[in-house]
Amino acid sequence: MEKVYVVGHRNPDTDSISSAIVYAHLKRELGMNAEAVRIGEVQNETAFALEKFGFEAPRFIEKASHDVKHIILVDHNEKQQSVEDIDDVQVIEVIDHHRIANFQTADPLYFRAEPVGCTATILNKLFKENGVDIPANIAGLMLSAIISDSLLFKSPTCTEQDIAAAKELEAIAGVDALEYGLAMLKAGADLSGKTLEDLLTLDAKEFGIGDYKVEIGQINAVDVNEIMVNQGELEDLIYRKIAEKGLDLFLFVVTDILNNDSVALALGSQAGKVEQAFGVPFVNNVGVLKGVVSRKKQVVPVLTEALSK
Amino acid sequence: MEKVYVVGHRNPDTDSISSAIVYAHLKRELGMNAEAVRIGEVQNETAFALEKFGFEAPRFIEKASHDVKHIILVDHNEKQQSVEDIDDVQVIEVIDHHRIANFQTADPLYFRAEPVGCTATILNKLFKENGVDIPANIAGLMLSAIISDSLLFKSPTCTEQDIAAAKELEAIAGVDALEYGLAMLKAGADLSGKTLEDLLTLDAKEFGIGDYKVEIGQINAVDVNEIMVNQGELEDLIYRKIAEKGLDLFLFVVTDILNNDSVALALGSQAGKVEQAFGVPFVNNVGVLKGVVSRKKQVVPVLTEALSK
Repeated sequence: MEKVYVVGHRNPDTDSISSAIVYAHLKRELGMNAEAVRIGEVQNETAFALEKFGFEAPRFIEKASHDVKHIILVDHNEKQQSVEDIDDVQVIEVIDHHRIANFQTADPLYFRAEPVGCTATILNKLFKENGVDIPANIAGLMLSAIISDSLLFKSPTCTEQDIAAAKELEAIAGVDALEYGLAMLKAGADLSGKTLEDLLTLDAKEFGIGDYKVEIGQINAVDVNEIMVNQGELEDLIYRKIAEKGLDLFLFVVTDILNNDSVALALGSQAGKVEQAFGVPFVNNVGVLKGVVSRKKQVVPVLTEALSK
Repeated sequence: MEKVYVVGHRNPDTDSISSAIVYAHLKRELGMNAEAVRIGEVQNETAFALEKFGFEAPRFIEKASHDVKHIILVDHNEKQQSVEDIDDVQVIEVIDHHRIANFQTADPLYFRAEPVGCTATILNKLFKENGVDIPANIAGLMLSAIISDSLLFKSPTCTEQDIAAAKELEAIAGVDALEYGLAMLKAGADLSGKTLEDLLTLDAKEFGIGDYKVEIGQINAVDVNEIMVNQGELEDLIYRKIAEKGLDLFLFVVTDILNNDSVALALGSQAGKVEQAFGVPFVNNVGVLKGVVSRKKQVVPVLTEALSK
């Protein structure tokens, strides 16, 4: 039977890796020859979850079209966040919880996006709608994804649906969500062994906003200053990325997972608009974004508004 | 409570009008102040269905942003097929069964597209998922939409899901689907009182395909020749549209609802590619497309392939 890849976004987070594994499992139960793959390194937080629930990381691929004709996207829909040869394969399904942009098909497809905090929350519905039971270890991965995306239910992206799904999955997985979740987030915020280049790219996403090319990197930390003390070197690395990719803006967001504020470093020709966008002063390219933890809900819409003027 | 419009595409067909009414009903049951509206004339076929099941046509609007901040799109997602001021309102939901293109949001939303034959088939699931009963007259409208989009289950767009949904809805509505359906389709194919301009615009949709601007008009008929005898006048009208809208191609498809073939008239700078696309001769701008009844499944993908080369 023809193979179909299920893939999350570049620089995959826990939701992207977990949702690829989980949805591939569901599709196999429904008779599809689906394989979860990834297009980036597994992060510490995700590795913690995979080990806890006994999964191998999905296979790493660079391109899809050599192996398959059809792919399923989870946790993203924007072309520039996906496999580089996405134009050479047919996207037959999308399960996502982000804005929709830079996505186009020639044929109708199954596209399920919902304004919830995590792809796994939608997958939880899809298991029910298809009458398929969720195994305990799959439930554990789904719970991990919700905890990751919601920063343990504290992000403004977290909805009642995410909390309800997490409760169901917690019971199936047989773990304590708060205790396990904090351990997982701390494993993710452990930046020992990471280079500054790693910090910039681990969870970076590129966006087309208005006429501008914008990259937003985000990293969770327990001690923000430990990262920002390297501002000079970070700026050198970011300027190199701006030049290489032709970016109009690079925003590097360091999120404190304990107090839920972020510190942002903005560089590029449109950096001046970031200050206006958030209405806070940026001194020496750096500003404090109080209560901002969500790129999707608190950064991208604000920049979209500011850069579209 | 803030009002939200539910709207189908321009030149609305029975699915667009019905789905607006049906989904507005469901959203009201779920507590939203939703009103079905339309952005085009009600066609004979749709009027037949509305009268049969005791509904008024949705209110006609030209623009949305004077009245509401949020809208829900049904049966379409492409910007150029929607309200003209769509950029001035926020699309909060989309329920659709077409390709996805020219659609972009700043925020996450509920976007439910499935590769089925009719929006009403998806709405049938949404009633179940939300635990809301379908009243008999609402079921009748949904059945009408499925019959219309599937040409009484004969279109290649018709899936097993559409047939299963139609059977459920037939029972709730208390009508005979085949008998009622043929009467409805014949009412729609009754072109008496229509001008040639009406025939071109009644069910015309504009598409961005590759770099080209393409408009495809489709009309159902019992006697195709009755329409094509006016080819000269039709061409005059089409050339005027091409000039006014800056189109690269206008394809007018006349579908015989009894034998399920279509006759197509192609004009514009890219008309030559239509012949290649379908692999049939076009003589004097006209070609016969055997077994072609679906714009979505049998015309748009073929043109997309041909115009993207």
